[in-house]
Amino acid sequence: MMTIKAVVFDAYGTLYDIQSVASVTDQAFPGYGEVITQIWRMKQLEYTWLRSLMQRYENFSVVTRESLVYTLAALGLTHDAATIASIMDKYLHLDPYPDARATLEALRGHQRAILSNGDSAMLDALVKNSGFAPLLDATLSVDAVRIFKPSPKTYALVEQKLGVKPRDVMFVSSNPFDASGAKAFGFRVAWIERVTAQALANETRNQQTIGPLTMFRATRLRPDPFGFDPDWTIRTLSELPALLASDA
Amino acid sequence: MMTIKAVVFDAYGTLYDIQSVASVTDQAFPGYGEVITQIWRMKQLEYTWLRSLMQRYENFSVVTRESLVYTLAALGLTHDAATIASIMDKYLHLDPYPDARATLEALRGHQRAILSNGDSAMLDALVKNSGFAPLLDATLSVDAVRIFKPSPKTYALVEQKLGVKPRDVMFVSSNPFDASGAKAFGFRVAWIERVTAQALANETRNQQTIGPLTMFRATRLRPDPFGFDPDWTIRTLSELPALLASDA
Repeated sequence: MMTIKAVVFDAYGTLYDIQSVASVTDQAFPGYGEVITQIWRMKQLEYTWLRSLMQRYENFSVVTRESLVYTLAALGLTHDAATIASIMDKYLHLDPYPDARATLEALRGHQRAILSNGDSAMLDALVKNSGFAPLLDATLSVDAVRIFKPSPKTYALVEQKLGVKPRDVMFVSSNPFDASGAKAFGFRVAWIERVTAQALANETRNQQTIGPLTMFRATRLRPDPFGFDPDWTIRTLSELPALLASDA
Repeated sequence: MMTIKAVVFDAYGTLYDIQSVASVTDQAFPGYGEVITQIWRMKQLEYTWLRSLMQRYENFSVVTRESLVYTLAALGLTHDAATIASIMDKYLHLDPYPDARATLEALRGHQRAILSNGDSAMLDALVKNSGFAPLLDATLSVDAVRIFKPSPKTYALVEQKLGVKPRDVMFVSSNPFDASGAKAFGFRVAWIERVTAQALANETRNQQTIGPLTMFRATRLRPDPFGFDPDWTIRTLSELPALLASDA
């Protein structure tokens, strides 16, 4: 008997490759693409947590823009409104991971949804631009509850909107904080380990050569020891159909 | 007429130099001192925010230990309980900033307090070991409200415990997120800019040479553009007595 009724995906970093903004940031600021991309993402996440805790919510477009402005200022890079606009636009056209479309297609027998920090306007544009709209039953934004992940209020949107109990949800994320939050909430969780622990340890073996990307990976891509470990660890989205079949 | 009735200090990074753990981490793991120190601090702060948002509070000793364990694992470093214990012990013996004692002494006419994420046991040990106990009227821990900064519940402890209204408090922190949170709450805020914006931009000019310390500085030492700017920006604690005198 199939017990998973809905498969709910994180968007940024899970279905869509946020590192794909590096092409645009490097074009705007040659030689700085990598460092901008990494600091921007760190600060973007940090701002979602800080604004939530301060009880000063602003939507993800605002947070994404604020963190980009911070990043350019921290690097001493001058910029105009057109440059900011062109970089921000890439967030509406992120590259999906290569196996995202085929995975969503293969999961046709389940409810398929996104639950994301992104606000509805950003998410709807991203889903439309990637051609994923026909493959998703719902695109849920935390904007409805005006707080960001990993607040339990965000994960509660799934039952409210899809009518599926937490224990019948498989939540899929590559972001460790999101996987922990979802597990603490009560979902069954598949965490995508895109960079292995061994590869990370190899990268960090010499602190003289640790650059922005390594720092990002070391601080953001390993499970956090909160005691809310995922039910499954997978390497790519394409493992999901078999995982769900084995749950039958 | 003097309007500031209490001067309330953040502890870690403001009165006490958290970077001083690098001496101990480098002794335990030669060549890794810097990178351990930076990733540890990043994850420590992150865990305070994530546990608060997940509504899974654990005290700062637990968070500090969890973030150290994460850091060593991310770097592929094996460790035993004794090593962890010796590094953790440094948190009870952090070096005060050189001007901390003289500043507290010079502010004798005001109520002087600490408001910190640290739990009472850690804070009391740190204050005692540094000899600052006679210079402080109160040491307040967020542990009383079981949530971390920048939740407004943490800053509300000052009025509850000292009986001073937010507008009559000068809150002092070098941590930008803490300065923003305190300002959003309603304190008057002095932010300590220990590394100038220009120095940071110079450090990050070549992304090939950006190491862990530069990443840390670039991501943690500049004001965040939330719209809650500090009332005063100072470079060192020793500027405070003159600042308060000018408020007379």
